[in-house]
Amino acid sequence: MLRIDLGAATPAYEQIANGLRALLVAAAMAPGEQLPTVRQLALDLGVHHNTVAEAYRQLAAEGWLDLRRRRGAIILDRPTPASSPEAVADFARRLEELIAKAIGAGVPRERIAAELETAARHLRKGAES
Amino acid sequence: MLRIDLGAATPAYEQIANGLRALLVAAAMAPGEQLPTVRQLALDLGVHHNTVAEAYRQLAAEGWLDLRRRRGAIILDRPTPASSPEAVADFARRLEELIAKAIGAGVPRERIAAELETAARHLRKGAES
Repeated sequence: MLRIDLGAATPAYEQIANGLRALLVAAAMAPGEQLPTVRQLALDLGVHHNTVAEAYRQLAAEGWLDLRRRRGAIILDRPTPASSPEAVADFARRLEELIAKAIGAGVPRERIAAELETAARHLRKGAES
Repeated sequence: MLRIDLGAATPAYEQIANGLRALLVAAAMAPGEQLPTVRQLALDLGVHHNTVAEAYRQLAAEGWLDLRRRRGAIILDRPTPASSPEAVADFARRLEELIAKAIGAGVPRERIAAELETAARHLRKGAES
Protein backbone atom coordinates (compact mmCIF):
# COMPACT_ATOMS: atom_id res chain seq x y z
CA MET A 1 0.00 0.00 0.00
CA LEU A 2 3.06 2.24 0.23
CA ARG A 3 6.09 2.20 -2.03
CA ILE A 4 9.22 4.28 -1.92
CA ASP A 5 12.06 4.77 -4.40
CA LEU A 6 15.40 5.17 -2.64
CA GLY A 7 16.99 6.43 -5.86
CA ALA A 8 14.55 9.34 -6.22
CA ALA A 9 15.45 12.98 -5.54
CA THR A 10 12.58 13.23 -3.03
CA PRO A 11 13.84 12.23 0.44
CA ALA A 12 12.47 8.87 1.66
CA TYR A 13 10.71 10.42 4.68
CA GLU A 14 8.94 12.83 2.34
CA GLN A 15 7.90 9.97 0.05
CA ILE A 16 6.49 8.07 3.03
CA ALA A 17 4.61 11.16 4.26
CA ASN A 18 3.28 11.82 0.73
CA GLY A 19 2.08 8.25 0.31
CA LEU A 20 0.43 8.11 3.72
CA ARG A 21 -1.19 11.51 3.19
CA ALA A 22 -2.68 10.28 -0.09
CA LEU A 23 -4.15 7.27 1.75
CA LEU A 24 -5.51 9.51 4.52
CA VAL A 25 -7.10 11.94 2.06
CA ALA A 26 -8.63 9.02 0.13
CA ALA A 27 -10.06 7.87 3.49
CA ALA A 28 -8.37 4.50 2.98
CA MET A 29 -7.67 4.71 6.73
CA ALA A 30 -10.23 6.07 9.20
CA PRO A 31 -9.85 8.27 12.29
CA GLY A 32 -9.14 6.22 15.39
CA GLU A 33 -7.25 3.57 13.43
CA GLN A 34 -3.66 2.89 14.27
CA LEU A 35 -0.79 3.09 11.79
CA PRO A 36 1.88 0.38 11.76
CA THR A 37 4.56 1.03 14.38
CA VAL A 38 7.61 2.96 13.24
CA ARG A 39 9.76 -0.15 13.51
CA GLN A 40 7.30 -2.32 11.60
CA LEU A 41 6.92 0.11 8.70
CA ALA A 42 10.69 0.70 8.61
CA LEU A 43 11.18 -3.03 8.33
CA ASP A 44 8.53 -3.36 5.59
CA LEU A 45 10.03 -0.53 3.54
CA GLY A 46 13.67 -1.36 4.22
CA VAL A 47 14.55 2.05 5.65
CA HIS A 48 15.99 3.29 8.93
CA HIS A 49 13.35 3.73 11.63
CA ASN A 50 14.33 7.40 11.96
CA THR A 51 13.11 7.88 8.39
CA VAL A 52 9.64 6.57 9.24
CA ALA A 53 9.62 8.52 12.53
CA GLU A 54 10.35 11.73 10.59
CA ALA A 55 7.44 11.03 8.21
CA TYR A 56 5.10 10.41 11.16
CA ARG A 57 6.29 13.64 12.82
CA GLN A 58 5.57 15.58 9.63
CA LEU A 59 2.04 14.18 9.40
CA ALA A 60 1.51 14.84 13.12
CA ALA A 61 2.60 18.47 12.57
CA GLU A 62 -0.01 18.70 9.80
CA GLY A 63 -2.67 17.43 12.21
CA TRP A 64 -3.18 13.99 10.68
CA LEU A 65 -1.73 11.89 13.49
CA ASP A 66 -1.60 11.71 17.25
CA LEU A 67 1.78 10.29 18.28
CA ARG A 68 1.87 8.55 21.64
CA ARG A 69 4.75 6.61 23.04
CA ARG A 70 2.67 3.59 24.06
CA ARG A 71 -0.26 3.59 21.63
CA GLY A 72 1.75 4.39 18.50
CA ALA A 73 0.37 6.64 15.74
CA ILE A 74 -3.40 7.13 15.84
CA ILE A 75 -5.21 8.71 12.91
CA LEU A 76 -7.02 11.90 13.94
CA ASP A 77 -10.33 13.25 12.71
CA ARG A 78 -8.58 16.21 11.14
CA PRO A 79 -10.74 19.25 10.32
CA THR A 80 -10.13 20.55 6.79
CA PRO A 81 -8.32 23.89 7.08
CA ALA A 82 -9.72 26.93 5.30
CA SER A 83 -8.37 27.33 1.79
CA SER A 84 -5.89 30.12 1.19
CA PRO A 85 -4.78 31.84 -2.01
CA GLU A 86 -1.25 30.64 -1.17
CA ALA A 87 -2.35 26.99 -1.06
CA VAL A 88 -4.09 27.34 -4.43
CA ALA A 89 -1.11 29.13 -5.99
CA ASP A 90 1.26 26.53 -4.56
CA PHE A 91 -0.83 23.73 -6.05
CA ALA A 92 -0.96 25.44 -9.47
CA ARG A 93 2.82 25.95 -9.51
CA ARG A 94 3.59 22.39 -8.45
CA LEU A 95 1.15 21.03 -11.01
CA GLU A 96 2.91 23.00 -13.75
CA GLU A 97 6.29 21.64 -12.61
CA LEU A 98 4.97 18.08 -12.45
CA ILE A 99 3.59 18.34 -15.99
CA ALA A 100 6.89 19.80 -17.24
CA LYS A 101 8.75 16.87 -15.67
CA ALA A 102 6.43 14.35 -17.33
CA ILE A 103 6.76 16.04 -20.74
CA GLY A 104 10.52 16.06 -20.27
CA ALA A 105 10.38 12.33 -19.49
CA GLY A 106 8.59 11.69 -22.78
CA VAL A 107 5.02 11.19 -21.56
CA PRO A 108 2.80 12.34 -24.48
CA ARG A 109 0.82 15.52 -23.81
CA GLU A 110 -2.44 13.72 -24.67
CA ARG A 111 -1.66 11.06 -22.07
CA ILE A 112 -0.93 13.67 -19.41
CA ALA A 113 -4.16 15.50 -20.31
CA ALA A 114 -6.11 12.23 -20.01
CA GLU A 115 -4.66 11.55 -16.54
CA LEU A 116 -5.54 15.10 -15.43
CA GLU A 117 -9.10 14.75 -16.74
CA THR A 118 -9.57 11.40 -14.99
CA ALA A 119 -8.35 12.90 -11.71
CA ALA A 120 -10.65 15.91 -12.17
CA ARG A 121 -13.68 13.66 -12.80
CA HIS A 122 -12.80 11.64 -9.72
CA LEU A 123 -12.59 14.82 -7.62
CA ARG A 124 -15.93 16.18 -8.90
CA LYS A 125 -17.61 12.87 -8.08
CA GLY A 126 -16.13 12.90 -4.57
CA ALA A 127 -17.16 16.51 -4.07
CA GLU A 128 -20.80 15.68 -4.90
CA SER A 129 -21.14 12.88 -2.37
CA MET B 1 10.70 34.26 -13.93
CA LEU B 2 11.92 31.88 -11.22
CA ARG B 3 10.97 31.83 -7.57
CA ILE B 4 12.11 29.59 -4.76
CA ASP B 5 10.85 29.07 -1.22
CA LEU B 6 13.72 28.43 1.19
CA GLY B 7 11.24 27.22 3.84
CA ALA B 8 9.83 24.46 1.61
CA ALA B 9 10.58 20.77 2.07
CA THR B 10 11.82 20.55 -1.54
CA PRO B 11 15.56 21.34 -1.66
CA ALA B 12 16.38 24.70 -3.27
CA TYR B 13 18.43 23.13 -6.10
CA GLU B 14 15.44 20.90 -6.94
CA GLN B 15 13.10 23.92 -6.93
CA ILE B 16 15.45 25.76 -9.30
CA ALA B 17 15.70 22.73 -11.60
CA ASN B 18 11.90 22.29 -11.52
CA GLY B 19 11.28 25.92 -12.35
CA LEU B 20 13.82 26.02 -15.18
CA ARG B 21 12.51 22.72 -16.59
CA ALA B 22 9.00 24.18 -16.68
CA LEU B 23 10.31 27.17 -18.64
CA LEU B 24 12.26 24.90 -21.01
CA VAL B 25 9.23 22.65 -21.64
CA ALA B 26 7.05 25.72 -22.22
CA ALA B 27 9.69 26.81 -24.78
CA ALA B 28 10.03 30.11 -22.93
CA MET B 29 13.76 29.70 -23.69
CA ALA B 30 14.99 28.38 -27.04
CA PRO B 31 17.87 26.02 -27.92
CA GLY B 32 21.13 27.91 -28.36
CA GLU B 33 20.19 30.53 -25.79
CA GLN B 34 22.35 30.99 -22.76
CA LEU B 35 21.12 30.75 -19.17
CA PRO B 36 22.26 33.32 -16.61
CA THR B 37 25.65 32.42 -15.14
CA VAL B 38 25.62 30.37 -11.94
CA ARG B 39 26.85 33.34 -9.96
CA GLN B 40 24.29 35.73 -11.44
CA LEU B 41 21.32 33.44 -10.78
CA ALA B 42 22.60 32.65 -7.27
CA LEU B 43 22.76 36.37 -6.59
CA ASP B 44 19.25 36.95 -8.00
CA LEU B 45 17.74 34.13 -5.92
CA GLY B 46 19.78 34.75 -2.78
CA VAL B 47 21.24 31.24 -2.62
CA HIS B 48 24.74 29.78 -2.57
CA HIS B 49 26.23 29.37 -6.05
CA ASN B 50 26.68 25.64 -5.39
CA THR B 51 22.88 25.38 -5.20
CA VAL B 52 22.46 26.83 -8.68
CA ALA B 53 25.38 24.76 -10.00
CA GLU B 54 23.67 21.60 -8.71
CA ALA B 55 20.41 22.54 -10.47
CA TYR B 56 22.31 23.16 -13.74
CA ARG B 57 24.09 19.81 -13.37
CA GLN B 58 20.76 18.05 -12.89
CA LEU B 59 19.31 19.64 -16.03
CA ALA B 60 22.51 18.84 -17.95
CA ALA B 61 22.18 15.20 -16.84
CA GLU B 62 18.64 15.21 -18.23
CA GLY B 63 19.93 16.53 -21.56
CA TRP B 64 18.54 20.05 -21.34
CA LEU B 65 21.81 21.96 -20.98
CA ASP B 66 25.34 21.97 -22.28
CA LEU B 67 27.65 23.15 -19.49
CA ARG B 68 30.91 24.73 -20.60
CA ARG B 69 33.38 26.45 -18.39
CA ARG B 70 33.74 29.54 -20.55
CA ARG B 71 30.42 29.78 -22.39
CA GLY B 72 28.18 29.02 -19.42
CA ALA B 73 25.00 26.98 -19.71
CA ILE B 74 23.64 26.67 -23.25
CA ILE B 75 20.15 25.33 -23.90
CA LEU B 76 20.25 22.21 -26.05
CA ASP B 77 17.78 21.07 -28.70
CA ARG B 78 16.80 18.09 -26.59
CA PRO B 79 15.05 15.23 -28.36
CA THR B 80 11.95 14.05 -26.52
CA PRO B 81 12.69 10.61 -25.08
CA ALA B 82 10.34 7.73 -25.81
CA SER B 83 7.60 7.40 -23.24
CA SER B 84 7.83 4.51 -20.82
CA PRO B 85 5.19 2.84 -18.63
CA GLU B 86 7.37 3.82 -15.64
CA ALA B 87 7.28 7.52 -16.57
CA VAL B 88 3.49 7.41 -16.92
CA ALA B 89 3.06 5.51 -13.63
CA ASP B 90 5.43 7.93 -11.90
CA PHE B 91 3.41 10.89 -13.16
CA ALA B 92 0.11 9.33 -12.04
CA ARG B 93 1.47 8.61 -8.55
CA ARG B 94 2.95 12.07 -8.10
CA LEU B 95 -0.25 13.67 -9.34
CA GLU B 96 -2.24 11.70 -6.76
CA GLU B 97 0.16 12.83 -4.01
CA LEU B 98 0.01 16.45 -5.15
CA ILE B 99 -3.79 16.40 -5.10
CA ALA B 100 -3.78 14.79 -1.63
CA LYS B 101 -1.47 17.55 -0.39
CA ALA B 102 -3.74 20.25 -1.82
CA ILE B 103 -6.86 18.68 -0.28
CA GLY B 104 -5.01 18.42 3.02
CA ALA B 105 -4.12 22.13 2.75
CA GLY B 106 -7.80 22.99 2.37
CA VAL B 107 -8.01 23.65 -1.38
CA PRO B 108 -11.61 22.72 -2.36
CA ARG B 109 -11.91 19.64 -4.58
CA GLU B 110 -13.83 21.64 -7.19
CA ARG B 111 -11.01 24.17 -7.35
CA ILE B 112 -8.41 21.44 -7.81
CA ALA B 113 -10.56 19.82 -10.51
CA ALA B 114 -10.84 23.17 -12.29
CA GLU B 115 -7.05 23.64 -12.25
CA LEU B 116 -6.56 20.12 -13.63
CA GLU B 117 -9.09 20.71 -16.41
CA THR B 118 -7.45 24.01 -17.37
CA ALA B 119 -4.05 22.33 -17.55
CA ALA B 120 -5.51 19.47 -19.62
CA ARG B 121 -7.12 21.89 -22.09
CA HIS B 122 -3.82 23.75 -22.37
CA LEU B 123 -1.98 20.48 -23.11
CA ARG B 124 -4.50 19.36 -25.73
CA LYS B 125 -4.19 22.71 -27.49
CA GLY B 126 -0.40 22.47 -27.47
CA ALA B 127 -0.54 18.87 -28.73
CA GLU B 128 -2.58 19.92 -31.77
CA SER B 129 -0.18 22.60 -32.96
